[in-house]
This record gives sequence, structure tokens and C-alpha cells, in this order.
Amino acid sequence: MSYNFLVKDLNNNLTQKSIGTDKGLAKIGDGIVNLTYSVAKSIVLTRNSKNNKTIRTGVKVSKTILANSLKEADMKKFSKSRADAHDLADTVEALIAYIWFIKKMTIEDIINFLVGSLNGNLTVRSEEIQNATVAFRKLLIEIKKYLPES
Amino acid sequence: MSYNFLVKDLNNNLTQKSIGTDKGLAKIGDGIVNLTYSVAKSIVLTRNSKNNKTIRTGVKVSKTILANSLKEADMKKFSKSRADAHDLADTVEALIAYIWFIKKMTIEDIINFLVGSLNGNLTVRSEEIQNATVAFRKLLIEIKKYLPES
Repeated sequence: MSYNFLVKDLNNNLTQKSIGTDKGLAKIGDGIVNLTYSVAKSIVLTRNSKNNKTIRTGVKVSKTILANSLKEADMKKFSKSRADAHDLADTVEALIAYIWFIKKMTIEDIINFLVGSLNGNLTVRSEEIQNATVAFRKLLIEIKKYLPES
Repeated sequence: MSYNFLVKDLNNNLTQKSIGTDKGLAKIGDGIVNLTYSVAKSIVLTRNSKNNKTIRTGVKVSKTILANSLKEADMKKFSKSRADAHDLADTVEALIAYIWFIKKMTIEDIINFLVGSLNGNLTVRSEEIQNATVAFRKLLIEIKKYLPES
């Protein structure tokens, strides 16, 4: 089944802000972000585990990480003017949901991309924040080519 | 990338309870359940919309819905003994995550399956609870064939 009809209204008048400020997309993107990051983190932790232990974990990616990744990718213009950290994080979630809806990346593609960008030690919280911000910044730059230019 | 290595420890000693009581699987499954149900609900609401409006929504599936779907599928034995509603819901989430990890169903497969089972009016809360419980009961019965027999 194609989900394209679920973004038809957006595609009829596609701008950076119409995608980046859509509340429904942000809600669905919230689920995509947390699921893909949880699996990516589980993969990295399991691979780096010293005693060959399998680690499965579920995490909620903080608004700060997502907001900073958008700023560092120089993509604040997809959000509304005078956006706070919460708005910027919503924009990241909306953009990722849009890319998934138009089938440019599957859930598995997003997980694999995050795994490829997640370096360093994820068991130290400060390092994890830094690494996760880089991984989402790289993901945003990757998906930018599928987004409108204005 | 195959994620099979993320359930290798479980596969080495596979029982109904080893899958159904795994905390990490439940955490990841929580994300799968909420994402797939949110998209399925968005599809059904958009299809049934009288003024052709696109509706995108994100929802958290309640523990009661999941716990009842497990009971109605007669699959309580996958949970621990004297399980409360929270434990039973965790079991549903763990089973769905396991099926996804071993690639028996993709995220899209689960969404399509839920859409096919979601009848009736989802805008009335009591009807939605009833319909969602049926949809997850059917999904559990569908995935049961891929799960161990004891």
C-alpha cells in the first residue's frame, strides 16, 4: 500500500514550512525517531558489548538533541519564525515522517543510516547526546535533497 | 542489514515466555505498536473523511486495549503468571517486536494488517477502543504461527 495519499494535501502546495510545521507529521515522526534511534542504539550497544551480550533498549530522543541537529544542519528555515527548541524538534520529526511517507527512506534505511553515523560510547550520557546530535544532523543533510528548495 | 543478531540470545532458548516477558523487546515493541497504529488510524480516518480531508494523527495505544487483545487471542500464556494489565500489554509489545526483528512482518505489513481489521467509527472513543482491541487480537492470532508452541 502506498501512503502517498496521506501527504497529498501537502504535496499540492509543497514548501519547506508546510512540511516542517505540520503537527500531524510531527506526531507520526516522533514515533519514527524514537523507534529508529532505539533500534540503532541497541545495534551499536550490542556490537560494542565486551562480553558479547545482546542489548535491546527503548529510548526517547530528547527535544534538545533534535533541535540542535536541525540548527547544525542549517535547516532552521523549515521551522516557523521565532521557533523554540520544542518547535525545532517537531520540525525534525515532521521532515523525517515526510521522507518516510514519500518512500524515500524506509524505517530500516533510517536505522541503518543512524547506525552508520553513531560512533563513540553511547553508555556515557554526555557522549551519547553529542553522538546522537551528529547522527541526526547527518540524517537531515541526507534527506534535504528530497525536500523543497523554498 | 539483518537485525537477527539482536534476538540471537532469545533464539538460543526460544520459549513463549522468553519472548513474551523480555523487557527490551517490550520497549522497542511499544514504539512499533504506537507508530503502526497511528498510521493505520490516519489512513482509516482519511479514507472515511466526508470532506476529503487528510488526517494525520499520532496516538498512544492504551495498555487496556493491548492487554484485552492478548486475553481475547487466548495468548495469556506468553506472559508471566499472575500478570497484571501492564504485564500483558508489555507481552503484546514484545511479541510484535520479535516478529518484526525476525522479519516475518515489516512495519508496512503491520500497518496494512491493522488497516484491514479497523472497521467502524474511530472518532467515537468507545468504538475506537472496541475496534482497536479486535484489530490487535487479529494481529496476534496472525503472528502466533511464527511463535514457539510452548
